[in-house]
Amino acid sequence: MSFFRDNITKMTGYVPGEQPQGGEFVKLNTNENPYPCSPKVKAAIGHAIQAGLQKYPDPTASAFRDRAAELFRAELPEIQPDWILCGNGSDDILTIVTRALVDAGKHIRFPNPSYVLYRTLAEIQGAQCHVVDFRPDWSLGEDFTKHCDHLRLAYLANPNSPSGTVLAPDEVLRIADALPCPLLVDEAYADFAESNCLGLVARSEKIMIARTLSKSYSLAGLRFGFLVAQPQVVRELAKVKDSYNCDALSIAGATAAIDDQPWLEQTRSAILATRQRLTTELKKLGFDCTPSQANFVWCHHPDRPARQLYEQLKSDKVLVRYMDYAGWGDGLRVTVGTDEQIDALLALL
Amino acid sequence: MSFFRDNITKMTGYVPGEQPQGGEFVKLNTNENPYPCSPKVKAAIGHAIQAGLQKYPDPTASAFRDRAAELFRAELPEIQPDWILCGNGSDDILTIVTRALVDAGKHIRFPNPSYVLYRTLAEIQGAQCHVVDFRPDWSLGEDFTKHCDHLRLAYLANPNSPSGTVLAPDEVLRIADALPCPLLVDEAYADFAESNCLGLVARSEKIMIARTLSKSYSLAGLRFGFLVAQPQVVRELAKVKDSYNCDALSIAGATAAIDDQPWLEQTRSAILATRQRLTTELKKLGFDCTPSQANFVWCHHPDRPARQLYEQLKSDKVLVRYMDYAGWGDGLRVTVGTDEQIDALLALL
Repeated sequence: MSFFRDNITKMTGYVPGEQPQGGEFVKLNTNENPYPCSPKVKAAIGHAIQAGLQKYPDPTASAFRDRAAELFRAELPEIQPDWILCGNGSDDILTIVTRALVDAGKHIRFPNPSYVLYRTLAEIQGAQCHVVDFRPDWSLGEDFTKHCDHLRLAYLANPNSPSGTVLAPDEVLRIADALPCPLLVDEAYADFAESNCLGLVARSEKIMIARTLSKSYSLAGLRFGFLVAQPQVVRELAKVKDSYNCDALSIAGATAAIDDQPWLEQTRSAILATRQRLTTELKKLGFDCTPSQANFVWCHHPDRPARQLYEQLKSDKVLVRYMDYAGWGDGLRVTVGTDEQIDALLALL
Repeated sequence: MSFFRDNITKMTGYVPGEQPQGGEFVKLNTNENPYPCSPKVKAAIGHAIQAGLQKYPDPTASAFRDRAAELFRAELPEIQPDWILCGNGSDDILTIVTRALVDAGKHIRFPNPSYVLYRTLAEIQGAQCHVVDFRPDWSLGEDFTKHCDHLRLAYLANPNSPSGTVLAPDEVLRIADALPCPLLVDEAYADFAESNCLGLVARSEKIMIARTLSKSYSLAGLRFGFLVAQPQVVRELAKVKDSYNCDALSIAGATAAIDDQPWLEQTRSAILATRQRLTTELKKLGFDCTPSQANFVWCHHPDRPARQLYEQLKSDKVLVRYMDYAGWGDGLRVTVGTDEQIDALLALL
């Protein structure tokens, strides 16, 4: 059909990490949490099912926003429920922000290497990409903040994927102030890091924070993410979201999930300990590893090509993520699984 | 914040029907099914929860597409799973189609009065609206198919809301052939009608059918819809959807729902019988009712203003939908509830 927009016809589309639906793989490729979600989540969803599914869900997910505002008040004293916008995963949040801010032909800036979806979002919108390479120490230079009349939005994954590195809040605030456009800080992995930027939202209406329950709360299958920004920003973004973008079960499950902070603490501690062990062991095997503040480790081996390692591991039923960034280089991104899963990987390597 | 796109700043945003989250209202305002979903849906979701939520869902919802292709083969012999695209409710499908086809500044055509969301979707995309009034007999005149260089998409709700009226498949095919752009037939209510347009998809790649499980399958709270079109069309549209737009629980629940056709038949029969009784009784009370092929009835009373009736009913804890279409007129759209709910409404009227 020749009716599609040119930018859609030309693009290839985002290819997500492999998602074999059987259970035969040790799956260390898409940064899922190896531990189950809190039992309170299952109970809350079971309760919502019994209440029935024939009615539309709350379009603003008030139950979640009320609870999240309480939870985050320690880090962001000004927060109220109307500082929060809920989404069908944080991909929905990234989409909403892009559609609200960026006209076709305008520009979006993001670092490289980073989350591959950013380019896809720009392509769907018909926007141009400003791609700024990270410096060797994973900091960002002046190119990231330089003026451009056409720039409408910048994405910053923090912690970054695939590196797992973090820019400190002070540096993020400096970047936001220097940028001629809003900055969407994608904090999908922030619960595994030593710092986050939530507290900056009150300092600048140009800073928006995206979070997901997919990683730290073990709920990738449920699709729930949210944005934190000043209320006048949330109000405009809400016009772009589908009215009922979050279903009744995910609202119930997500609310129960953030209500069980001890469960988060317990699974996070386990993952951080395993991350440390994985990094140590990979180094012993001769890998270069970037120090990670996320639930994955980015590594490559000076003598063994990453693609070959990926393929060998896959044939042995261990899936890791092979990433190849044009003009930058390749490597393996290994999700921090259980100790048993990591042992299986290390034995093969 | 002054950074938003002009079209976003100017628009007011879609206002969904009231969704009081308590149980105190007889809710006849958003065309929800008054009967619960199949018990098999609850069982399938329960099973999916036990399997765990920490992994990402199948990005293409293959289980649903396989089963749906089998089910629809009677009406559309050519259908295969790759003729189907799944969405987070049919609103997600409408959004995907609009984003894939319509550049900012181009035009979208739809009838009036019809689903109010169509205007919102056009506004978000920065497109212009061609609004074509239905004729008094709820047919569409030549204005709906007339040539326009800027036209990129036409929406047609069939059955239409608020009228509940249907254009026959032959007429829809004639419209699609005459239009200079693709036609999205929004069949949210088709399971309550005597005909549908699924069989037309093989006849024209310009015809796309949107369906939802919200109404006939009693799953508004679960958010699951889908599109049927020729595979080369589905392939392009898939580039625009979020990778994981359907969660693991909704895929499991939706697949179980379409697998239980006897349940659908039973609840549909009950609703059609109550619709007949509601129409008869409203007429006895002096209302003009449009003959409906959906799960609602559009009516107004020659002597009693619709807004006043709506407000009086609301104060008595019965919610119906008051609709006022600029330049066209107003009325009440009454969802077909249970017999008890309809008795409560009729007693008040």
